[in-house]
Amino acid sequence: MIDIRAATSADFDLIWPLLRDVFRAGDTYAVDPEISKEEARALWVTQARVTYVAESDGMIVGTYYIRTNKPGGGAHICNCGYIVSPAARGQGIAARLCEHSQDQARRLGYRAMQFNFVLASNEGAVRLWHRLGFETVGTIPDAFDHPVLGLVDAFVMYRRL
Amino acid sequence: MIDIRAATSADFDLIWPLLRDVFRAGDTYAVDPEISKEEARALWVTQARVTYVAESDGMIVGTYYIRTNKPGGGAHICNCGYIVSPAARGQGIAARLCEHSQDQARRLGYRAMQFNFVLASNEGAVRLWHRLGFETVGTIPDAFDHPVLGLVDAFVMYRRL
Repeated sequence: MIDIRAATSADFDLIWPLLRDVFRAGDTYAVDPEISKEEARALWVTQARVTYVAESDGMIVGTYYIRTNKPGGGAHICNCGYIVSPAARGQGIAARLCEHSQDQARRLGYRAMQFNFVLASNEGAVRLWHRLGFETVGTIPDAFDHPVLGLVDAFVMYRRL
Repeated sequence: MIDIRAATSADFDLIWPLLRDVFRAGDTYAVDPEISKEEARALWVTQARVTYVAESDGMIVGTYYIRTNKPGGGAHICNCGYIVSPAARGQGIAARLCEHSQDQARRLGYRAMQFNFVLASNEGAVRLWHRLGFETVGTIPDAFDHPVLGLVDAFVMYRRL
């Protein structure tokens, strides 16, 4: 059983290890692998509109943020990022987080959700986002220098809310 | 005759009126139309890798920036923004700025240039970027709420350097 709830400022000490391990690996997010805890807080919390955590047995096993993708005339589209702890993968938590984020984004008045940079090599994510209603609306050639695979494409993915 | 040179910090007082008028109009850039001068300086100068101005007869008639589009594994692709003063349009200055920026971006080591948000309604820009070697690699539906046209698509445009 997982419970998804808004993050409190006290949660960041438990969110950070999840972000740190994913960012340090440098193979999914276009984030500096050397990012500091405070820079990660800015990215995941301060610059976000909302941040949520998924809890299971009192442990934080996942997190996501929603932010406005572009200001001005683009402010009706949101962007989200999701991370699930390695120990909790394969249980459908990413899908639960994405569905939850779509509901929250509608509640906040957003009319569409956009992922700007989904690596083609991240096949599980691409399949999941398709299943959850996203279409690929763009392909950026050689967008990401993957530590093992070298240059890989990135997809822009989009769904109306 | 126009001269393109690196901007100095003293130039921003003359760059700002160009940015202000374009951003206030809210029909080309996904920027808050109410942006302040200091926020515009952060966007156009502080967060940029380099900022250039085009001068004609001692007047600043255009400006562009180059920045890293994404950190981490995406840092080999740059992003640019260009603005030409209304009085100086139709003289090929935007093309000159874009060609100049491609040379500078190569010099800085970037391997591709990406525009994240070119409005479909900005037909002159789309035509110009195609002519200068960019291809449309993505189309974001209803990406921008245009003050006259309502929701318009935005293109992701890309060229290798």
